[in-house]
Amino acid sequence: MIQAARAALIALDWGTSSLRAYRLDAHGNVLDARNLPWGIMRLPEADPGDAGGSLHARFEIAFEAACGDWLRQQPGLAVIACGMVGSAQGWREAPYLDVPAGLPDIGSTLTRVDRGQGTPLHIVPGLSQGGALPNVMRGEETQIAGIVAGLPSHQTPNLLVCLPGTHSKWVRVTGQRIAHFDTFMTGEVYAALREHTLLGRTMRDGQGEDAQSFAQGLAVAGTPEGRAGVLSTIFSTRTLGLAGRLPATGQADYLSGLLIGHEVASLLAMRAPAQATLVLCGQASLCARYEQALAYYGVRDVVHAPQATERGLWLIARGAGLLAG
Amino acid sequence: MIQAARAALIALDWGTSSLRAYRLDAHGNVLDARNLPWGIMRLPEADPGDAGGSLHARFEIAFEAACGDWLRQQPGLAVIACGMVGSAQGWREAPYLDVPAGLPDIGSTLTRVDRGQGTPLHIVPGLSQGGALPNVMRGEETQIAGIVAGLPSHQTPNLLVCLPGTHSKWVRVTGQRIAHFDTFMTGEVYAALREHTLLGRTMRDGQGEDAQSFAQGLAVAGTPEGRAGVLSTIFSTRTLGLAGRLPATGQADYLSGLLIGHEVASLLAMRAPAQATLVLCGQASLCARYEQALAYYGVRDVVHAPQATERGLWLIARGAGLLAG
Repeated sequence: MIQAARAALIALDWGTSSLRAYRLDAHGNVLDARNLPWGIMRLPEADPGDAGGSLHARFEIAFEAACGDWLRQQPGLAVIACGMVGSAQGWREAPYLDVPAGLPDIGSTLTRVDRGQGTPLHIVPGLSQGGALPNVMRGEETQIAGIVAGLPSHQTPNLLVCLPGTHSKWVRVTGQRIAHFDTFMTGEVYAALREHTLLGRTMRDGQGEDAQSFAQGLAVAGTPEGRAGVLSTIFSTRTLGLAGRLPATGQADYLSGLLIGHEVASLLAMRAPAQATLVLCGQASLCARYEQALAYYGVRDVVHAPQATERGLWLIARGAGLLAG
Repeated sequence: MIQAARAALIALDWGTSSLRAYRLDAHGNVLDARNLPWGIMRLPEADPGDAGGSLHARFEIAFEAACGDWLRQQPGLAVIACGMVGSAQGWREAPYLDVPAGLPDIGSTLTRVDRGQGTPLHIVPGLSQGGALPNVMRGEETQIAGIVAGLPSHQTPNLLVCLPGTHSKWVRVTGQRIAHFDTFMTGEVYAALREHTLLGRTMRDGQGEDAQSFAQGLAVAGTPEGRAGVLSTIFSTRTLGLAGRLPATGQADYLSGLLIGHEVASLLAMRAPAQATLVLCGQASLCARYEQALAYYGVRDVVHAPQATERGLWLIARGAGLLAG
């Protein structure tokens, strides 16, 4: 009989639309991983007869599917989670930690969810930033912890980390501190414009990406016309098509380039990473688009970091003394 | 028996979502007006057995409903139309006139739609503007013609006309020429963000407008944080709510103010109306929002022009020699 490798932690990356579960050993190596569709906004249905409150029951069902067998196999393992599971719409609201925030401080403010007879769940705090326009993140702080730990140890981090996605985050890291961050809703705005405005009506699917149209859109933010801002420049997706200067099959990529260009140009104008290393972390094809945008607006040296959430969860759990053995 | 007042023209304001019909006398006074829901994107259904091509037949049905009885009552009246009816998705594509464009030139380039035994329809050209990001309008050129004619006759117009709406237009008019214009998709973007992104999820209906939240949003574009642009600042609709600094019932008005503020601030930075009179024309409550935004960003003298499309259609028809009698 084969003995299963011994784990030290169960780590959950629990977001809005998905739930990723990891069984990690004492060195943070991944022994098993699972990808479930049960983000906090699409939990499985509970038995209608359940008396324990339906939302709690639905979280329990997803939790059981994610790691119930792992816990029976090795009782006493700690479970840690990050992401929207700690939001007001999550299993339990985990208070935010204020920015600037030391990475080592994250593990000292976990929120514990007691589960009766079951193993408790520890939820990583999100980060909150004050100011005229406040800002929040949940999950990205854990990615940052993993990214920083993955850099060569002799470097004191001086980073601007870009995490592109539905909501892009740009995170300034100095030493072991998250100093500042910005959010751009670029991915979600792109989807809303494409699916729910006039701009989508003339778009046609092409064969793969239209690199030329993407580059054409990327340049807009840097032109004199770009000063009018996104609310105005996006209309060119339609008018360039009417003028015969943008094919219908290129209009989606043009709009993508235009939005990413506006994001990158304005971010760099506000927070040019003097002396800082620019790090990109995210889905590969999206990172390639951001790398092209960064190069166009003057930042050519970019470091690609692998996805680092499970590494960050392991580090935070270790800092909190949760590792088994 | 009462004799119906004698008309000189039938004028149609035929847009994407509605069709307005006017019976006008020799002085441009409105004798009758009708409002039909049959914009070019929601025409009435034709008889499935009709052999004449279903799209043409659907335009004919809408046309008949708009003015068939007026034409039978007074055969030989000319019919003129402006708006999206002249677009590629309209009844007949009416070629654009290039900007800069003289207002008197509009009437000399009407597109005639022959209707067999029926009275022909004359469609007003839209305007097209070249440049790095081209621009187009259909219908607003006719409003401008009406607005300019409504100003005191001793003034040589030197105007910046704002036509707020789904797609706002800002039109520079010098003398009898449309010199330049800009488009902002603010109204459509607002609806898409509200209905199809995370921002709408925390919004709640209040009792009427929340003027304080609107003003709070209006200011954002002028702050240092506003330099990040709309893709970033809109996220504050959510985060100010999370921080307890914006009620759920104020979030829609905050977002409206934020978007209008970005539009007005960037437009004025690019094309401050030195010596020009700023004219607002559109739906009253929306114009009030734009007037507040203009005042906040430094333009206090604003002239309100009444809706002027039927006046513009009458003027263009007169210039083209279409008036009866």
